[in-house]
Amino acid sequence: MKCEIIAVGTELLLGCILNTNAQYLSEKMAELGIDVHFQTVVGDNLERVKGALKAGLQRADIIITSGGLGPTDDDLTKEAVSEALGLKLLPHEPSLTKLKEFFKKINRPMDECNLKQGYLPEDCIILNNNNGTAPGVMLDKDNKIIVLLPGPPKELIPMFEDSVYEYLRKKSNSLLKSRTLRIVGIGESNIQGILKDVFDSQTNPTIAPYAKSGEVHLRITAKSSSLEEADRLIEGLEKTVRERLEGNIYGTDYETLEGVVNKLLTEGGLTISCAESCTGGLLSQRLTSVPGASKCFMNSIITYSNESKEEFLGVKHSTLEKHGAVSEETALEMAEGIRRVSGTDVGISITGIAGPDGGTEEKPVGLVYIGISCMGATEVHKCLFTGGRDKIRYNTSTKALDIIRRILLKKM
Amino acid sequence: MKCEIIAVGTELLLGCILNTNAQYLSEKMAELGIDVHFQTVVGDNLERVKGALKAGLQRADIIITSGGLGPTDDDLTKEAVSEALGLKLLPHEPSLTKLKEFFKKINRPMDECNLKQGYLPEDCIILNNNNGTAPGVMLDKDNKIIVLLPGPPKELIPMFEDSVYEYLRKKSNSLLKSRTLRIVGIGESNIQGILKDVFDSQTNPTIAPYAKSGEVHLRITAKSSSLEEADRLIEGLEKTVRERLEGNIYGTDYETLEGVVNKLLTEGGLTISCAESCTGGLLSQRLTSVPGASKCFMNSIITYSNESKEEFLGVKHSTLEKHGAVSEETALEMAEGIRRVSGTDVGISITGIAGPDGGTEEKPVGLVYIGISCMGATEVHKCLFTGGRDKIRYNTSTKALDIIRRILLKKM
Repeated sequence: MKCEIIAVGTELLLGCILNTNAQYLSEKMAELGIDVHFQTVVGDNLERVKGALKAGLQRADIIITSGGLGPTDDDLTKEAVSEALGLKLLPHEPSLTKLKEFFKKINRPMDECNLKQGYLPEDCIILNNNNGTAPGVMLDKDNKIIVLLPGPPKELIPMFEDSVYEYLRKKSNSLLKSRTLRIVGIGESNIQGILKDVFDSQTNPTIAPYAKSGEVHLRITAKSSSLEEADRLIEGLEKTVRERLEGNIYGTDYETLEGVVNKLLTEGGLTISCAESCTGGLLSQRLTSVPGASKCFMNSIITYSNESKEEFLGVKHSTLEKHGAVSEETALEMAEGIRRVSGTDVGISITGIAGPDGGTEEKPVGLVYIGISCMGATEVHKCLFTGGRDKIRYNTSTKALDIIRRILLKKM
Repeated sequence: MKCEIIAVGTELLLGCILNTNAQYLSEKMAELGIDVHFQTVVGDNLERVKGALKAGLQRADIIITSGGLGPTDDDLTKEAVSEALGLKLLPHEPSLTKLKEFFKKINRPMDECNLKQGYLPEDCIILNNNNGTAPGVMLDKDNKIIVLLPGPPKELIPMFEDSVYEYLRKKSNSLLKSRTLRIVGIGESNIQGILKDVFDSQTNPTIAPYAKSGEVHLRITAKSSSLEEADRLIEGLEKTVRERLEGNIYGTDYETLEGVVNKLLTEGGLTISCAESCTGGLLSQRLTSVPGASKCFMNSIITYSNESKEEFLGVKHSTLEKHGAVSEETALEMAEGIRRVSGTDVGISITGIAGPDGGTEEKPVGLVYIGISCMGATEVHKCLFTGGRDKIRYNTSTKALDIIRRILLKKM
């Protein structure tokens, strides 16, 4: 079965609001195994809404609209659907009574235009709205299902869950299940090369890569009639992918890199401290974004100046003078220094040039040293990142998290 | 002029990601006085992308696509456009060279599929990508403009701003000029109340509020035949707004709160250091996200544990015991402590409960104390934020930046 999602609202076309309804409905359709081929956004214009509906009806079995069910003149989704399908809008007494009671309850006069909300297409299934005044509408005729939902997510989501999900589940004969493998330390095109045969021969399950700042997410999706069968299909393909990319896969589904590092530290009963220069606190901020981080995260010192590197971390004056702040030697002393002054099991340091200024031929923008001092040994990684200041800083923090992750996995 | 926005990507149709690009581009079109009649989302399928393009070309003058420019087989926006318009894809030597250099620089093997990114439609304008490997493409022929942008917002936004905005501005024959007043410390509905008469009577210029995490942006837009006239119109309305909201307006257009604070510090020849607890480095990270921050930002200490607050900042053991880590007294000693150990002009401290756990009846989740020690005086602000962990942390950092801003303005 194919579905098309049509959001109605000029405010979306002006960029005033984000189309979160389309994401929500798409996610639900994926869960139901119903393919969404198009999402459309159209303004509050009768002809254009009718046009979008007609185009949708030609290519999909299910149309779900959001918005345009309110009381004002520019709310015209019901009108457009009725005209497109040749249906009359008829007064619906229970809805009209509910409207009148609502206005009595909130002690506000009801404007005549509000009555509009009690007029519904003939032969429709009425979807109760427990969170607003506009009822939703479902039409199921001639092998097409049309669902009209209100625009506000607080009304749309409960209405969909209470009255639409189950109805569509019974109509859909297949079930779709996905698992996302989260990958770090290897680029999208590289993965594409390593898994070329897998990508080329995919049918069910399918596999698709998505590049996310500094990471790649590989989504495996299986179509089946039962959850167990879908799980089995996913596991078969996942095994192949894991064999080829093992060390680079840090988690699945909604796990984050900072979450995985926190978990490894907490499980190992280990504590961590950071000495950051060019990332200015970003690594610490990501580590502490995880609830419960205080179990393993003790403290960090952000040393932007040379003086503070000496004073707070005990980096030797001669090291800074001889090798500079951005050097393997400084990163090493910073990592050992932060671990020593903090009394933690792991100390990690970052020193580099985030740009846009400050680069030289010898030490270009993007050059970063990451040091890690852990269980009696210290190592320093030299990296060269590309892009602007934000990207360099973010990718540096991702690399640092990955370095911690790999060392913890090796040592535990 | 009419524009249609087409986002290409199966991940959007599966609900994995939100279509923030469509919102961003729609907002920019509104700014340029270009009408958007449709936004479409289509999957990674050659025939359907071609179909969407053809439909768009029939009803719009400008088509902007996002996504599908990457190296993999399911990236096919360029292919679809070329086929729809009957254009050849030709190798573009500078782009190919750039690609090869990129892979050499990051010291990773280049997979054959990456070369695809260096093939571009004949007669196109190439849009440089400074934040990724896929160049963008602009075609301007037969009175239609087609712009192909990469999907990741970190690549799309700078590319649009650097290479597309000005091009379209020149094409749009109604001259629209906007100025955004950036506001902090007051909510959107409050602003609506204070400016009710202004909102109700707006014609030209128009005024629209946009709530952005912890801030409100008020956009004033004037339509005119000359830039000078537009400026005059904007200035008239801006004067009224400034009179009523003065202290809350921290900047205009693309100024950021961290940028304004950095500027005030640098201009005053002042240095700053931070002591962060619940924000875990977020304030420091924002302060150092501004290029050239090293002129004023010296160092920060993130003290997550009580011990580190005593050891690194000299917070008294008795203070922590009597009042707790989240208290006015601790915030005060942290602010004075970081200023003393860092030898800076300004010391700022944050201690609070970001949640989701750790709250009590007396000290609920969202309770935060922000201390600032500056030119001989120290003050502490007690705040209560709502929302989840991320929102509490972010709004805390915004509040801290605003406190620094207001004190610097008062003292200078």
